[in-house]
Amino acid sequence: MKAVIISVGTELLFGQTTDTNAVYLSQQLQLLGIDVMYRHTVGDNPARFRQMLDLSYQDCDLVITTGGLGPTQDDLTKEIVTEALDDRLVLHAPSLEKIEGFFRQMKRPMTENNKKQAYMPSKAVILENAQGTAPGFALESGGRTAICLPGPPREMTAMFVSGVRPYLETRTESAMYYKMLRTFGIGESALETVLQDLIDGQTDPTLATYAKEGECSLRIASKRPARAEAEQAVAEMLAKVKVRVGEFIYSEDDTDLATVAGRKLIESGISISCAESCTGGLFAAGLTGIPGISTVFGRGFVTYSNASKTEELGVSAEILERHGAVSEETALAMARGLQKRSGSRIAISVTGIAGPEGGTPEKPVGLAYIGCIFDGKEVCKRVMSRNVNRNWNRNHTVLSMFAVIRGLIEA
Amino acid sequence: MKAVIISVGTELLFGQTTDTNAVYLSQQLQLLGIDVMYRHTVGDNPARFRQMLDLSYQDCDLVITTGGLGPTQDDLTKEIVTEALDDRLVLHAPSLEKIEGFFRQMKRPMTENNKKQAYMPSKAVILENAQGTAPGFALESGGRTAICLPGPPREMTAMFVSGVRPYLETRTESAMYYKMLRTFGIGESALETVLQDLIDGQTDPTLATYAKEGECSLRIASKRPARAEAEQAVAEMLAKVKVRVGEFIYSEDDTDLATVAGRKLIESGISISCAESCTGGLFAAGLTGIPGISTVFGRGFVTYSNASKTEELGVSAEILERHGAVSEETALAMARGLQKRSGSRIAISVTGIAGPEGGTPEKPVGLAYIGCIFDGKEVCKRVMSRNVNRNWNRNHTVLSMFAVIRGLIEA
Repeated sequence: MKAVIISVGTELLFGQTTDTNAVYLSQQLQLLGIDVMYRHTVGDNPARFRQMLDLSYQDCDLVITTGGLGPTQDDLTKEIVTEALDDRLVLHAPSLEKIEGFFRQMKRPMTENNKKQAYMPSKAVILENAQGTAPGFALESGGRTAICLPGPPREMTAMFVSGVRPYLETRTESAMYYKMLRTFGIGESALETVLQDLIDGQTDPTLATYAKEGECSLRIASKRPARAEAEQAVAEMLAKVKVRVGEFIYSEDDTDLATVAGRKLIESGISISCAESCTGGLFAAGLTGIPGISTVFGRGFVTYSNASKTEELGVSAEILERHGAVSEETALAMARGLQKRSGSRIAISVTGIAGPEGGTPEKPVGLAYIGCIFDGKEVCKRVMSRNVNRNWNRNHTVLSMFAVIRGLIEA
Repeated sequence: MKAVIISVGTELLFGQTTDTNAVYLSQQLQLLGIDVMYRHTVGDNPARFRQMLDLSYQDCDLVITTGGLGPTQDDLTKEIVTEALDDRLVLHAPSLEKIEGFFRQMKRPMTENNKKQAYMPSKAVILENAQGTAPGFALESGGRTAICLPGPPREMTAMFVSGVRPYLETRTESAMYYKMLRTFGIGESALETVLQDLIDGQTDPTLATYAKEGECSLRIASKRPARAEAEQAVAEMLAKVKVRVGEFIYSEDDTDLATVAGRKLIESGISISCAESCTGGLFAAGLTGIPGISTVFGRGFVTYSNASKTEELGVSAEILERHGAVSEETALAMARGLQKRSGSRIAISVTGIAGPEGGTPEKPVGLAYIGCIFDGKEVCKRVMSRNVNRNWNRNHTVLSMFAVIRGLIEA
C-alpha cells in the first residue's frame, strides 16, 4: 500500500504548532510496512485540501488526514473527504449520544455546532474517540481509502492504536512485528556506535534509534509473510542487542521509566516517600501519575529553601553550611530526615541546580545529588545533566531518580 | 507573495527526524507577511520532488526548499530546481575555495563528490553557509522564485537570518502583525459561538480559535501595507473581543497560565506554599518550573493519605470522617494547616479524585476542591474536570489552581 499523510490546519502553516502527528503516523505506517510517499500540510482551506486529496490518489491508494474534524466552521475535512469518495453524511446516533453525554456530564449546554461532529459518511467505519468528542472514520471507495483522524495528538494516537492499526493490519498482506526498547544512561550516538554493524548489516529485522529527551529508544522491526517468523527474527536480534547494551534497557514495550519503576513499587508493595529541592515536585508528580500508586506512596516534600530543609527534614544548619545545599551530605541528610518522618521503606531525596542561574565552576548548572534509603541501605548518586535548559535538567534529574529506584528494587 | 515550503529527505517520511525546519520557516515567513499555502515533504526522489515543484508554481510564486544540497548521490535538490527554473549549473569558485579550505582545516582529504557542492545556478544569488560546507541559493526566473537551503537546522536557520530574510525583505510589500490570546474557563466551541459574527465577518484582521489541553487560544492577525496599520487593526479587534470574553483571557502574548501566575507572584513578592493530594506535586512542579520562583516559593507538601493530611497539615480526623477527604472542608483545613506551618502569604491546597478509580455518583472522577488563603482571606473553589483520563484531570485541576491564584492577586 502507498500512503500520503495530509495534515490540516492553518495553525500548522503559521508554525504555531509542530506537527508531531505526521511524525507519529510516518513511524507507525512504516512499522505496518506501508510506504509513505508524501506528507502535505494545508490550511483550513477546502479547495486546497481537495486538490491535495485528488493529487494523492493519482499514485497512492491510502490517504490519512489529521485535523479539521472539530465542531467549528472551518473544520471541513470530513465533508470534503466524503464528497471526494462519492459518499454522503448521515447522522451517526451513537456518536451523537456520546457527545450529548459528554455535555451532560460537564453540566454544560451543548452548542448546536457540536452536533456537526455526529454526522459521518454513510459507508464509513467509525473510529471511536476515547479521548475527545470528535470521532474519526475510515472510508473506502473504488480502491481509494481515506482515514480521517482528529488533530489533538492525544486523541489521534489513541485512535490509531485502538482503531486504525487493526483496520490496516487486515489490509496488508505481510506481517509486521516490532519491539520498541527504552534505554537510559547511554546517548544516541554511543548507542549507534555500539550497534553500528547490526544497523548497517540488516535489511530485516531493521534497527533504528530514536533520541528522546534525556533518553534513547531502540526499535527492532521485522516484516515477514507470517507474524511468527517476524516475532522470531525480532527475538533473535533482541538477544544480540542485549549482549551489547542490555544494562541500559529498562523496557521492551515502550513503557516509560516512571511507569516501570512505579509498577515495581506497587507490585512489590514497597512504600516510598520523596523530598525534592531542584526538581520542585516533578518527581512526585511523575510517580503519582501512575494509577494505583496511592497504595505505596507515603508523602512528598518540596523543600526549596535551606529553612524548609531544616524545618521539614531536620537537615542541620551545620551540614548546609559546611557542604552546601547541593552536596552528597545534604542529599543523604534529607533522605534520613524524610525516612524518619514518613516511615516509608524507600526515602528518596534530590538537591541540585536546575538553572539558568545559580551555577558555579565547582557546582555547575545541571548538577544534582540523589540520596536514597531503602530498608536502611543508603546510596547517593551524583547526576550531571547536559545543561540544555531548566526543564531539561529537571526532567533528566527526575529520570535519574526513577533509574535509582528501579536499580535498588531489582538489585 | 504566496509561498510553499518543500522539505526533502526520505528520513522525514520514515519519521526518524521531526521537521523543525518547516516550522521555523513557517513562523519566519509569516512574520514577513508572506502567506504559506502548503508544506510538502518528499523523499530523495527526483520525479516526486519535481512534481511538487511544478505544482507549487501553479498558484504560488515562492518555493523554499530544505535538504538535498549535500555531496552525496541522492542530493539532487539543486539540479532539479536549476532545471525547473531554466538555468544551468556552473562552478562557483568562492564556494569551491571555501569547501577546500574547510577540508584543509579539518586535515581531511576532500573527496571528489564534495566538489559537487560548488556548482551553482548561473543566475543565482549565492547564500553563504557559515555553519557547514553546502552553500544555499536564491534563484528567480519568470516571476518564479526558489530559495534552496541545507537540511541541518543549525545551517538552515543561520543562512535564513544572514541571507534569506534580507533577500525577502526587499521583495515584500505588506507587513503582518498578530496577537495570540490565551483563555481559560471557556471551551473552544463556546468561545467560537460567542465570537461567531466577528469570525465570519472579518477578512482582516482574522480571528481563529485553537484548542489546547484544557484551555483555548485565540489568534488575531492582520496583514496591511504598513506594520502600524496592522497593529492598529489588531488592537481594534482585541478591544471588541475583550468586551465579550475578556474575563477568560489571561495573556495576550501566548504566555501560559502557570508562567503568568508565577511572574505575578515574583513581581509582587508574594510568598506561596502548596499542599496537594490528587495532583500529587504537579502544581508545585509547574510553579517551580518558572525561573526566579525560589524568591517567593516557600514549601510544598504532597499529602495523599488521610494520615499525611493529619500529620503534616493538622487536618482533624473528625473533618475527614464527617466530610470526606474530597470536600470543601478538608481543602480549607489543609490550606489553614499549610498556612500556619509555612507562614506563606498564599497557602493553596487541593484534594480531589484523579481517577481512573475512586469515583462515586456524589463525588465523580474529575471532581476537586481547591482551598486557598491569601493574607487571611479564605476561598474554596469546586472544580469539575472533563474526565478524559487521570492526566487530563490532574492537568486541568492544576490549571484551575493557577487561575485561582491569578484571580486573587488581581482582585
